[in-house]
Amino acid sequence: MRATVMFGAGDVRIEDVPDARLVEPTDAVVRVSRAAICGSDLWPYATLERSETGRRMGHEAIGVVEAVGADVRTMNVGDLVVMPFAFSDGTCVFCHEGLQTSCVHGGFFGTPDVDGAQAEAVRVPQADGTLFVLPIGEDDALMPSLLTLTDVMGTGHHAAVTAEVGPGKTVAVVGDGAVGLCGVIAARRLGAEQIMILGRHPDRIALAREFGATDVVSKRGEEAVERVRELTDGFGVHSVLECVGLEQSTLTAIAIARPGGAVGRVGVPQDETMPASLPAFYNNVTVGGGPASVRAYIEELLPDILKGRIEPGRVFDRVVGLEGVPEGYSAMNEREAIKVMVQP
Amino acid sequence: MRATVMFGAGDVRIEDVPDARLVEPTDAVVRVSRAAICGSDLWPYATLERSETGRRMGHEAIGVVEAVGADVRTMNVGDLVVMPFAFSDGTCVFCHEGLQTSCVHGGFFGTPDVDGAQAEAVRVPQADGTLFVLPIGEDDALMPSLLTLTDVMGTGHHAAVTAEVGPGKTVAVVGDGAVGLCGVIAARRLGAEQIMILGRHPDRIALAREFGATDVVSKRGEEAVERVRELTDGFGVHSVLECVGLEQSTLTAIAIARPGGAVGRVGVPQDETMPASLPAFYNNVTVGGGPASVRAYIEELLPDILKGRIEPGRVFDRVVGLEGVPEGYSAMNEREAIKVMVQP
Repeated sequence: MRATVMFGAGDVRIEDVPDARLVEPTDAVVRVSRAAICGSDLWPYATLERSETGRRMGHEAIGVVEAVGADVRTMNVGDLVVMPFAFSDGTCVFCHEGLQTSCVHGGFFGTPDVDGAQAEAVRVPQADGTLFVLPIGEDDALMPSLLTLTDVMGTGHHAAVTAEVGPGKTVAVVGDGAVGLCGVIAARRLGAEQIMILGRHPDRIALAREFGATDVVSKRGEEAVERVRELTDGFGVHSVLECVGLEQSTLTAIAIARPGGAVGRVGVPQDETMPASLPAFYNNVTVGGGPASVRAYIEELLPDILKGRIEPGRVFDRVVGLEGVPEGYSAMNEREAIKVMVQP
Repeated sequence: MRATVMFGAGDVRIEDVPDARLVEPTDAVVRVSRAAICGSDLWPYATLERSETGRRMGHEAIGVVEAVGADVRTMNVGDLVVMPFAFSDGTCVFCHEGLQTSCVHGGFFGTPDVDGAQAEAVRVPQADGTLFVLPIGEDDALMPSLLTLTDVMGTGHHAAVTAEVGPGKTVAVVGDGAVGLCGVIAARRLGAEQIMILGRHPDRIALAREFGATDVVSKRGEEAVERVRELTDGFGVHSVLECVGLEQSTLTAIAIARPGGAVGRVGVPQDETMPASLPAFYNNVTVGGGPASVRAYIEELLPDILKGRIEPGRVFDRVVGLEGVPEGYSAMNEREAIKVMVQP
């Protein structure tokens, strides 16, 4: 079959690889209907060390179950399933607590042991705990929005939850990538009164406004902090969704939080230490977040997508076939596309 | 009157100073019945730059109201009052949210504008919002425990609250100083099932056990992390109370938190950045805390002290008169005393 392999920074190729197949009795093999390129794929795209074997890429997919191992109970061949970016057994203590990204038998796609989903098919470990069977067909118009349940919509929601967004709260979303845009959707959905987006790309800002952003802060650094304070009687916001992961964006996130406020980090941090330890402390700002347990959020978010109340699929502004994946990486890296959907 | 002045690191003297007096109509003057030396006073004791004027010290006191400004409504001359370490107006948006340490008209004692409480008397700004009138006399045997409401007991409670301690939770307290010991009391009071104290001073550990600690971890660094994991099926604890403020203790605090757990920081951080940004992120560990709004906690904690259900006053293991304050600093600095009470 054909699959995406990254051989080094900037070097993404579609290669012939062995067909995905069952290895463990708890596995399923899923033929990929839709996959996506993630903002987090751009980190290795910028920095991956060159190797002969390369790294299989992709961790977001919707697909059709093609085969199931002997121990798989909750799905049948032919089912259409959502594949979250982490796999999880669904039965351990952390899965029961809704923290599937810390599952004791879990892990991530696109790693040495588990192949990626930017491919014709993918082996899914712990299929019962990982996959979620959809009540629709694969030609449904909602497919792009459903695809965001695998990562970006669940991740934006996680940022909002850990930032303690709620009715009447003031919210700032740092970053106008696909996750930040889904963070806007999540903040509005959870009842936020005022939602600022910190970003500077006109197309993304426009979409953020349609998703519910009430204010746009296009400055950076100190000027951004000043502007957010102006918009909030000098206090800062209750909830900050940090959707970038850089030192500067984290500094800004903590600086614009109101005393007693909360920062939800979902941008993968690029530094060993967190800045602004002292401002966070003196203002009693809580910093939470991490890899979103999107598996836990599917039940909550799915009805709103099925009923059209939220449309996170609008973050996909380009569609490519599998052979177009390298071009998709380049487009996202150059900020020519917000997020690329892959239709193998 | 006589008051404590620190002229530089290690140089604490009792000096003649002008009598405390009303300045603003919202002020009260309080004659100090009991004051205390704080672990946080040991930071300037180690590092304060030498000056001619020096710094007035002390931010914990119980005393008798001697004079009130024209606008003070809620107390009378002769009332016995608790003075929390921060003053606050009691009416601003943050005070209403229970975050008095961020009061828009608030501040801290022992700063250039507001004198300290290791003195015969102290001027208290925003008296109505700051002071809490006690229903007892100043010769009450409960005075030491009531004195902890000004800082250490409220701070230990704040650590426990921000670390999300609750019934059935596993808890670790990093640091065996007075705040850590009060953290043990707070964790037990909030229903924790297992309470580990990380510390190595035999007298403090013994008191921690009496306060409800179920386990003692005397190692440091990696060995401490390993031991906490052994005690928790390899997972770490739900709640960590960080009661030191150093880089190493913060690293340990984050490392021993269970995935999805919470760290409540109340040790004043000594670094600009927070370590362990990546472990905190990948484990979805929330880091909160800051200066405790002890004023908000008095109502909750006072009944338990009055009924003898908690005895935080046992952290005071030495009592000095005002002239003995320099010796008290030295004793705490040398770890010969856990916490020193001052009886002017």
